[in-house]
Amino acid sequence: MKRIKLIAFLLVCSVIAVAQEMQNGMPNVIKSVNSPQGKVCLAFSIQNGKPCYRVAYKDKDVVKKSFLGLELAKSKHASKGMGETDLMDGFVLADDKTTTFDETWKPVWGESAAIRNHYNELAVTLKQPKTNREMIVRFRVYDDGVGFRYEFPQQKELNYFIIKEEHTQFAMAGDHKAWWLPGDYDTQEQETQESKLSEIRSKFHDAVNWGNSSVAVFSETGVQTALQMKTNDGLYINLHEAACVNYPTMHLNLDDKYMVFESWLTPDATGMKGYMQTPCQSPWRTILVSDDAREMLSSNLILNLNEPCKIEDTSWIHPTKYIGVWWEMIAGKNSWNYTDEFPSVKLGETDYSKAKPNGKHGATTANVKKYIDFAAENGIDQVLVEGWNIGWEDWIGHSKDYVFDFVTPYPDFDIAYLNKYAHEKGVKLMMHHETSSSTQNYERHLEKAFNLMNKYGYDAVKTGYVGDIIPRGEYHFSQTLNNHYMHVIEEAAKHHIMVNAHEAVRPTGLCRTYPNMIGNESARGTEYEAFGGSKPDHTVILPFTRLQGGPMDYTPGILETQLNTWSDNPNIVHTTLVGQLALYVTMYSPLQMAADLPENYKKYYDAFQFIKDVPCDWSQSIYLEAEPADYITVARQDKNSNDWYIGGKCDENGHRSNIKLDFLLDGCIYDCTIYADTKNADYKTNPKAYKITHKRVKKGDILKLTMAPGGGFAISLKAVESINPAIKVQK
Amino acid sequence: MKRIKLIAFLLVCSVIAVAQEMQNGMPNVIKSVNSPQGKVCLAFSIQNGKPCYRVAYKDKDVVKKSFLGLELAKSKHASKGMGETDLMDGFVLADDKTTTFDETWKPVWGESAAIRNHYNELAVTLKQPKTNREMIVRFRVYDDGVGFRYEFPQQKELNYFIIKEEHTQFAMAGDHKAWWLPGDYDTQEQETQESKLSEIRSKFHDAVNWGNSSVAVFSETGVQTALQMKTNDGLYINLHEAACVNYPTMHLNLDDKYMVFESWLTPDATGMKGYMQTPCQSPWRTILVSDDAREMLSSNLILNLNEPCKIEDTSWIHPTKYIGVWWEMIAGKNSWNYTDEFPSVKLGETDYSKAKPNGKHGATTANVKKYIDFAAENGIDQVLVEGWNIGWEDWIGHSKDYVFDFVTPYPDFDIAYLNKYAHEKGVKLMMHHETSSSTQNYERHLEKAFNLMNKYGYDAVKTGYVGDIIPRGEYHFSQTLNNHYMHVIEEAAKHHIMVNAHEAVRPTGLCRTYPNMIGNESARGTEYEAFGGSKPDHTVILPFTRLQGGPMDYTPGILETQLNTWSDNPNIVHTTLVGQLALYVTMYSPLQMAADLPENYKKYYDAFQFIKDVPCDWSQSIYLEAEPADYITVARQDKNSNDWYIGGKCDENGHRSNIKLDFLLDGCIYDCTIYADTKNADYKTNPKAYKITHKRVKKGDILKLTMAPGGGFAISLKAVESINPAIKVQK
Repeated sequence: MKRIKLIAFLLVCSVIAVAQEMQNGMPNVIKSVNSPQGKVCLAFSIQNGKPCYRVAYKDKDVVKKSFLGLELAKSKHASKGMGETDLMDGFVLADDKTTTFDETWKPVWGESAAIRNHYNELAVTLKQPKTNREMIVRFRVYDDGVGFRYEFPQQKELNYFIIKEEHTQFAMAGDHKAWWLPGDYDTQEQETQESKLSEIRSKFHDAVNWGNSSVAVFSETGVQTALQMKTNDGLYINLHEAACVNYPTMHLNLDDKYMVFESWLTPDATGMKGYMQTPCQSPWRTILVSDDAREMLSSNLILNLNEPCKIEDTSWIHPTKYIGVWWEMIAGKNSWNYTDEFPSVKLGETDYSKAKPNGKHGATTANVKKYIDFAAENGIDQVLVEGWNIGWEDWIGHSKDYVFDFVTPYPDFDIAYLNKYAHEKGVKLMMHHETSSSTQNYERHLEKAFNLMNKYGYDAVKTGYVGDIIPRGEYHFSQTLNNHYMHVIEEAAKHHIMVNAHEAVRPTGLCRTYPNMIGNESARGTEYEAFGGSKPDHTVILPFTRLQGGPMDYTPGILETQLNTWSDNPNIVHTTLVGQLALYVTMYSPLQMAADLPENYKKYYDAFQFIKDVPCDWSQSIYLEAEPADYITVARQDKNSNDWYIGGKCDENGHRSNIKLDFLLDGCIYDCTIYADTKNADYKTNPKAYKITHKRVKKGDILKLTMAPGGGFAISLKAVESINPAIKVQK
Repeated sequence: MKRIKLIAFLLVCSVIAVAQEMQNGMPNVIKSVNSPQGKVCLAFSIQNGKPCYRVAYKDKDVVKKSFLGLELAKSKHASKGMGETDLMDGFVLADDKTTTFDETWKPVWGESAAIRNHYNELAVTLKQPKTNREMIVRFRVYDDGVGFRYEFPQQKELNYFIIKEEHTQFAMAGDHKAWWLPGDYDTQEQETQESKLSEIRSKFHDAVNWGNSSVAVFSETGVQTALQMKTNDGLYINLHEAACVNYPTMHLNLDDKYMVFESWLTPDATGMKGYMQTPCQSPWRTILVSDDAREMLSSNLILNLNEPCKIEDTSWIHPTKYIGVWWEMIAGKNSWNYTDEFPSVKLGETDYSKAKPNGKHGATTANVKKYIDFAAENGIDQVLVEGWNIGWEDWIGHSKDYVFDFVTPYPDFDIAYLNKYAHEKGVKLMMHHETSSSTQNYERHLEKAFNLMNKYGYDAVKTGYVGDIIPRGEYHFSQTLNNHYMHVIEEAAKHHIMVNAHEAVRPTGLCRTYPNMIGNESARGTEYEAFGGSKPDHTVILPFTRLQGGPMDYTPGILETQLNTWSDNPNIVHTTLVGQLALYVTMYSPLQMAADLPENYKKYYDAFQFIKDVPCDWSQSIYLEAEPADYITVARQDKNSNDWYIGGKCDENGHRSNIKLDFLLDGCIYDCTIYADTKNADYKTNPKAYKITHKRVKKGDILKLTMAPGGGFAISLKAVESINPAIKVQK
């Protein structure tokens, strides 16, 4: 077995082996490991005392020689002298270990009911004789990529240190095409840019979402992760991170002369990056690679690099479909705030009971009842209500510390009655905690806020982090804030509460460890369709980028794509109506909102049937076709039945799909409902032209489908007959 | 009545009236008000659109023409244009109101059972036509000084603003002598400097306590408040602030060419100073003035400027005398931490139950029992125990966020047993919460920590804020931290817990509003006697400076002044033994520690009798003689009896006092015990030479006493016989 591996390694790593001869100076060491099937090869070496690595895929360079290391802060409290030597060079190899791991685990929810975690590992122990310190770099090599991290064992000469910067390089082999967002410490809500790496600098300024409530860019060649690239010779490469815990979020800064990315961490208010106490480790730096774009989407590498579930009893965690008092405010028809009477409010001082209502408050008892009724009639689990609690009159842009108390409803929101009313109809309300990024204030009220949720029977909360962070000077993606988000997740778990954080840090697979982290926004969501729109290819990029770290609460389902039909908002949604249905399958999430108004769903009630039907938990998922920014087609099997759902979504150019149903069960007949764009449908000119077709299909049948510009399709396949007695089907 | 006041004003304000003639440019307006007895005069004017004021005392300049105003930040979120105009100039007088106030109120605890609050007030409403904004400056003029503040009513054009700097001037009339500390955002634990104002710059560097765990000086002529000064012509002037709530702490920066102080607020991590939402106000800026040093000490101006008590039921708040497991650690004999086995610890991960004890842990069950026994035997209310909870192994200097959990005892501290044991003997334990300045962590655990206290029957906590603040970049005296301290006070009150904060911000009289703020350190305490010593005049300066804002937990009572008699610590306390007794009277506090070890008290048990006897709550206090940095003698009457106590304390030069007992009750005989230094006593060479004399005295008798260098005296006067049947005496 070992011999076979070695041969495979020599085959794929010829590019790396050549490099060895070119070194001089200090004796160089090369240690390498390949992936289980030999597709991916990782080589580690120490060159003149500096650790570096390379990654190849099927004999092609993925990451060329790239240096590793951390620059430490010269803390005023650190002991003088060697205590402040960087962990960058002067290293010798003290030990190396190669191991194999193969395990299949079951997520609480996910795209598959079982996930295989199969890798070969190389752990190198580096000694810095000058300081008598040790650091381990651990590489895990999968057939679809590599993860590696720094580990700092507890040791006499390294107990505490402050990271000034992590200098992990990712040297690209060419001027790849990239789908990128401007690197920003505070927001991820930009439109994705598609360009050559060499073009990032010139396109950077216009790519920044300057109008966002928080913007903190740091370099004209700085980009966010997950960064999706495509090489000229057809390799797909994705750079991101996994298990970012007690560490700042990583961005990438490009040296666009040599096409070398380097890690650029999010600082705290003092400019420092990470405060470390051994034993500890960095997050995993991940490199996904394949010559098949579908493997970018089906990869579980990031989940696999996270720790197993830490929540013992997960019975209270459940995928959830919800509607909400939300889109009517986003579109500008109603308001979160109750009154327009005061120039500003102070909680505990402003007397809302005497305030004059503005007449367009969304979260009224009557309006929420309407949503509850609709949810109950249509099998929707929960109803989100935003704007239920006092403080929305001046919640944003004032650096206001005590902005919400998270427990006091507006006078026109009867919290006790509405929860009782909902529960009697088998529906739950979903809590909303907008923090206005005043995180210290949120933490002060967290326990009381969760107690209130428990009291009234809420089991899920949407949190929000709009605006600049308080403590002032901190950023959304700093170590401090990452610890805050984790604190909320952990405290919520104690209360059996699921959390869906908006504007928080982009996820890095932590939902494996904390499956009550049921959702995240952390990207440009559907709301932007009401603010001017996102490009039609937006949703066929996100699964390659933002969704690598975990599901997104994208809030799809805007069937009335022309907002001026019911509001003063002139914007349109940049998909067809059917394109909105497709997103429930193509954008995986265990939390799916049906974001449009009940009256709009009643208007397109036959199309809404798909939203009612589509599950949000799956036993398996098969990506049928994919190309970043062009199209994605995926088939998924319901976790609780033999039914399948297929979604296809494309960009502004339309797309044709031939779907061979070879994944269906042998001997089963399926009731197939196809929601398709009509021939002349177009997201701009004819968005709501759809056709619903019913037929019966079986394994091996082929479906030919056409997606309109900005369109898609959605298919439900319900197993209705079976000649195999072992297979039970719905009747 | 009004006429009489006007005459008095004209008399004292001649220096101000002259100034009026010298103005040119815009029409100038002068409004003025004098104090109830006419001693102090305040004049306000607008000069070329800039507000300014002057203060005179008995026809002498106290504050010469000084400008008022605030510079606003140009926030990126503020609306453009006039929204960012400073509140410095362009003002016209829109309104002015003069009123009189006279009220006597009863503090929950204090130097007196009743406090008269008698002032004349001038409130000027300033309009800035360019911005259509209004600001009120409210002056309260007392016979012993002036307080004034800025008020910002809620208004259309001023709802939120960020203070870049407050520019309140205090123009001194000469090169006064001053007792000053280096202005510092983080610490107040310096040795006081005595110099001319013009000498501050040259003495500044050496005055900084560079070895402190946090040092953040900002200017070579920056000083802390309360700043005590004395003029060449015998005026005592003190600058400080009152009611610093939701605002950064003020320092003073001296323009030493013109001897003009200007306010210098404590910044946050971004360099900004205050985040304001109207209606709001600044703290009061206070100027105490008298030609009698004793009036500096008897002034209630700062308490009077604070809001009345906000705690409805104060029955659970009580002055407290305590001993503690503390001095043995401060002196270095025992340790706070339990083990020396680990280079660092992680709460929840480090297994203390298997750790090897270091053998010198102070907070053991056995040791604490010894203290409880001693407290019970001697009528001491409480026993403080420091180092009872896990985390002390690496608590300082590592910017460690999760440093304490405040609920988990070390294995050798039996919290349930010890509280039960203490309660059975009529004693309470006092809680200790060292936060290591990781305030976010403290807030996360606050509710659980207070619940634990309630569970076991603690009703007082000593908190600590050693080291740099987390959130990093924040300072001990910023608005954020001031709000934190207030948050702790308010949450504690809900749990009926009294708070004694160490290393927190210097107080500004808030104990009137929140009397559960039972103590504060916020200055160089007795602990420094074990770190090298404080100068003998230290405790005859503090009442003029640090104590102006509220009581200090100075932790006196070190009767064994030579530490090497029981430890390896070579330091001596810079007072005589009797000097330590005197502090219980001269350094007013409702919370008084007997800080020495029980075994040392047993050694000097006859002297310890005074510590047993002396109350810590008073019905009246009479300052008999005082001179900053030289001597203070004060007589105080027990709040619960007719007994009196007199304390005298002096600097390194010794002092002789003639005390006429004319404050005693007519017709009463008092058992008088005098604790005095012997003739040859000296804090350096013969510190523990004391003599205890008993005699009987009555009103009008004279006591002649000599304080040794670094010494003092302490006297108890117990009413034992009365010919007046209305007066009950103890038998």
